[in-house]
Amino acid sequence: MTISITPIAGLPMVRPGDDLPELLFAGMQRSGLSLEDRDVLLVCQKVVSKSEGRVVDLRTVTPSPFAEQITASTNGKDARVVEVILRETKRIVKMEAGRLIVETGPGWVCANAGVDESNSGDPHLVVLLPRDPDASARRLVAAAEARSGCRIGVIVTDTFGRPWREGLVDFALGAAGIEPLLDLRGTRDLGGRELHHTILAQADALAAAAGLVMQKGSGIPAALVRGYRFAPGSGGATQLIRPRGSDLFR
Amino acid sequence: MTISITPIAGLPMVRPGDDLPELLFAGMQRSGLSLEDRDVLLVCQKVVSKSEGRVVDLRTVTPSPFAEQITASTNGKDARVVEVILRETKRIVKMEAGRLIVETGPGWVCANAGVDESNSGDPHLVVLLPRDPDASARRLVAAAEARSGCRIGVIVTDTFGRPWREGLVDFALGAAGIEPLLDLRGTRDLGGRELHHTILAQADALAAAAGLVMQKGSGIPAALVRGYRFAPGSGGATQLIRPRGSDLFR
Repeated sequence: MTISITPIAGLPMVRPGDDLPELLFAGMQRSGLSLEDRDVLLVCQKVVSKSEGRVVDLRTVTPSPFAEQITASTNGKDARVVEVILRETKRIVKMEAGRLIVETGPGWVCANAGVDESNSGDPHLVVLLPRDPDASARRLVAAAEARSGCRIGVIVTDTFGRPWREGLVDFALGAAGIEPLLDLRGTRDLGGRELHHTILAQADALAAAAGLVMQKGSGIPAALVRGYRFAPGSGGATQLIRPRGSDLFR
Repeated sequence: MTISITPIAGLPMVRPGDDLPELLFAGMQRSGLSLEDRDVLLVCQKVVSKSEGRVVDLRTVTPSPFAEQITASTNGKDARVVEVILRETKRIVKMEAGRLIVETGPGWVCANAGVDESNSGDPHLVVLLPRDPDASARRLVAAAEARSGCRIGVIVTDTFGRPWREGLVDFALGAAGIEPLLDLRGTRDLGGRELHHTILAQADALAAAAGLVMQKGSGIPAALVRGYRFAPGSGGATQLIRPRGSDLFR
């Protein structure tokens, strides 16, 4: 079965308070797309955050002494941006070589707590991660299912770096309607050997796939994946966070 | 532009010495697929390794004292498998909680040096990573381009775990015909702000996408991605290896 990934284009610059589902449906309509059963709608974090008002005007931010102190070692970052990052940080994982890898409130490990200075639409604004990306995804599922009458999966994506490997890839930050993990344990391989360790991060694979059409700067904030026959589920993307106790690299 | 991911099915169990390009082309033909310009052919490491004879019969392996010693702490692994892993290892990154995260000869950081006990087709055999996955990819590109007269990208994929996140995702281990990294630095975002840090690991995103149709145990060892308008290039997947000196997590 062929899987297709179609960009959803033509959205306006999203602003706080915008009705994101309506903007997405209008974009889909202009792209000649309508929702079908078990489509997966992937939406980049940036537009979700902006529609939810998760933006900060740097002119309102006064850096703490600690933010000022570490700014000196972070490659000329704006101290106010560092302050915003620290406010989104539960724990600093690494602070080295001008980079700030932190754990956010929900437990995501990423650079700069996901605080993003690009594509904000205003040089004074930075965009934060959604407060609860799974809740954002659930709201989008509800709107998409109400509109289409179909079972829809929604994944909120963000673009992260990774240890050990160069380059950025899109990951799942929020999910609803589709289980983020696909557990194949207990199934058998071609030789009949039982698979013991195989749990696939299908939400991350879908996010990476959608990233192929939503590349930064392309103006494509969403994509529709069709043909991936997932089992509908009620899990959320926080299931993708490895608990600190079983993580060898935290 | 819609991107499609089509599974290539119907390959026989691959054996050492098999002509992998011919098996793949026959599989494509049976799936009604022919190569078009700038298709990306993704092939799982397992069949590449097997065709190249990168298998070890455990009955021929005598564990070293060190392999015996660490076997006790690795959740009941077979000491001969540990011995094979150590022979593929340049450096142990983490040895903890029954897990063995190592750096392989070319510098890939992964669990068990990529040595795999499943889908080998014989309970005595384990499959190693290809010796030079970029060279494997180059051979497949040469065969695919000779056959089709088109510019083709090839990516050899493997399924890895990741720090911080649960679940497995497919990554690029070898690449040819397509640059593994897509450098967007110097381009501008929607607000005109220059992107300073944006280098996308497009080969990893393509691998993850292909993983959606090549899930372990599915018997699908390859996939064709169409519609991804990449710029042909001469790089290889080793460019995805972050040098140890600039890696905060090694």
